[in-house]
Amino acid sequence: MTSWKDPEIAGVRALLAARQPDPGAPTPSYAERRASMDAMGEMGALPTGCFHEPQAMGGVKCERVVPQGAVAGRTILYLHGGGYTAGSPRSHRPMVARIAEAAKAVAIVADYRLGPENRFPAAVEDAVAVYRALLEWRIEPGRIVVAGDSAGGGLAMALALALKAEGLPQPAGFFAISPWVDLTQSGASYRTKAESDPTITKAGLDSAALAYLGGLDARDPLASPVLGDFEGVAPVLIQAGSEEALLSDSLTLADVLAHARVDVRLEVWPEMIHVFHAWGGALQAARRAIRVAGAWMDERLA
Amino acid sequence: MTSWKDPEIAGVRALLAARQPDPGAPTPSYAERRASMDAMGEMGALPTGCFHEPQAMGGVKCERVVPQGAVAGRTILYLHGGGYTAGSPRSHRPMVARIAEAAKAVAIVADYRLGPENRFPAAVEDAVAVYRALLEWRIEPGRIVVAGDSAGGGLAMALALALKAEGLPQPAGFFAISPWVDLTQSGASYRTKAESDPTITKAGLDSAALAYLGGLDARDPLASPVLGDFEGVAPVLIQAGSEEALLSDSLTLADVLAHARVDVRLEVWPEMIHVFHAWGGALQAARRAIRVAGAWMDERLA
Repeated sequence: MTSWKDPEIAGVRALLAARQPDPGAPTPSYAERRASMDAMGEMGALPTGCFHEPQAMGGVKCERVVPQGAVAGRTILYLHGGGYTAGSPRSHRPMVARIAEAAKAVAIVADYRLGPENRFPAAVEDAVAVYRALLEWRIEPGRIVVAGDSAGGGLAMALALALKAEGLPQPAGFFAISPWVDLTQSGASYRTKAESDPTITKAGLDSAALAYLGGLDARDPLASPVLGDFEGVAPVLIQAGSEEALLSDSLTLADVLAHARVDVRLEVWPEMIHVFHAWGGALQAARRAIRVAGAWMDERLA
Repeated sequence: MTSWKDPEIAGVRALLAARQPDPGAPTPSYAERRASMDAMGEMGALPTGCFHEPQAMGGVKCERVVPQGAVAGRTILYLHGGGYTAGSPRSHRPMVARIAEAAKAVAIVADYRLGPENRFPAAVEDAVAVYRALLEWRIEPGRIVVAGDSAGGGLAMALALALKAEGLPQPAGFFAISPWVDLTQSGASYRTKAESDPTITKAGLDSAALAYLGGLDARDPLASPVLGDFEGVAPVLIQAGSEEALLSDSLTLADVLAHARVDVRLEVWPEMIHVFHAWGGALQAARRAIRVAGAWMDERLA
């Protein structure tokens, strides 16, 4: 077994291990998974003075998260993770609030449609609709960063391709946290990091991809953005943990973006796990990563 | 042909094109190549108030470059590029001075032995000797960053492996500019970027590798660090240009470091070329990249 230098990540791993279901327990339903993810989010603390409210955008339910110190007009369009089948503004609220605070921006968190009830490309359509609504509200594209984690990071990169295809202006940048960008599941890290990833399994990803795609081709670039042509898209910051089964997705995305002449920065945080940013209360590394990303967004947002 | 959005890089490309030798001209000797590279360095301006002086370290000729505002004790060990067969403290002086200034550190630039007169691992031995001399001078490892460009970036990563093998303490970090880290020349970008790279060719790299290795195996990790085991080495910042034939070297290095749980940040700068940092006078992107790297070093240097 690997011994971890960072005692905090060892603590998070112990907590995750204690939370494992019994080997004989039935597979939870989508409703149960969603409720449990939402409950996790509700348990986390918001930064002092931060408030949130429902906000429909372009026909899509959203939540507006307003941290103290937000600069007027600066907006993060946030796309949450959850394998395209779970997750919501509630499940991601504490993490989004910390990210918005770090970027001195308001966050609009899209409650996009999920699989298996709404299969691909419903989520992409909803992301485009919210972005379009932001522009109709006269928010300048140079004052928008699109951010997302896991499936939401993939959705952010799919949105980059969709904006290009539809001739819409690019935002100031994209911030992708542990993005899931290859639904063909071709990455080496699914094997090389299988032992050290405490939350993500190949079987779980396969099941989520099936539920999202409902038989459609995983090689569609709006489902697997690493297969798309990114020439001309806005700068991208990728942050991932070194212990992720999805590490290869981040590395491949950086490779594809670099070849396409996109301004890309990839940061791999040692010993960290999938979307470690969600553990902001427990991990200094999570707070540091969010601070570093905040500085990157702050520099790019007008 | 690609058209460049950055008018400054278009200017640098025009300058490089005008400097191409006649097709029928004889291949320059090593002495001619070294003299021409040194002359380029002498032409560049140093930051105001910066001075330099010869300084032997551990039996290796070096040059000490002292910018204004250097914090006492903070040191960059700089390993210059030139395909392990050319380059010197003179050829790299203006770029090193800008990097040292950005990190608020003194630079020690090693005039390590070159091929074909001194083949592998002479350069690695010299780099280790200089690092060891810094420690003997009571400079704390936490106050040293090892930096290098091209072959010097590869040498910096070889030094990381050598320090590990010899049980010497790691420095605060490594800053690798367009590193050449795979002398087996396996990268995809040798083909995909062959058209857009104005300075580096596969033939040139083959010739340099042959001169450096003199028939020894390119798969030795001290020659091709991407084949080494980096677990436990200090944080690494990699900066490369998107138009480099050596782009794959940077991408593969980031992949190898990430898998080995090293704190790694990779930045690919769009439209930029191999070691674009050397064009600090002409390219805003070069000055910005050096500023960003300076902030990264400043954060890590005690």
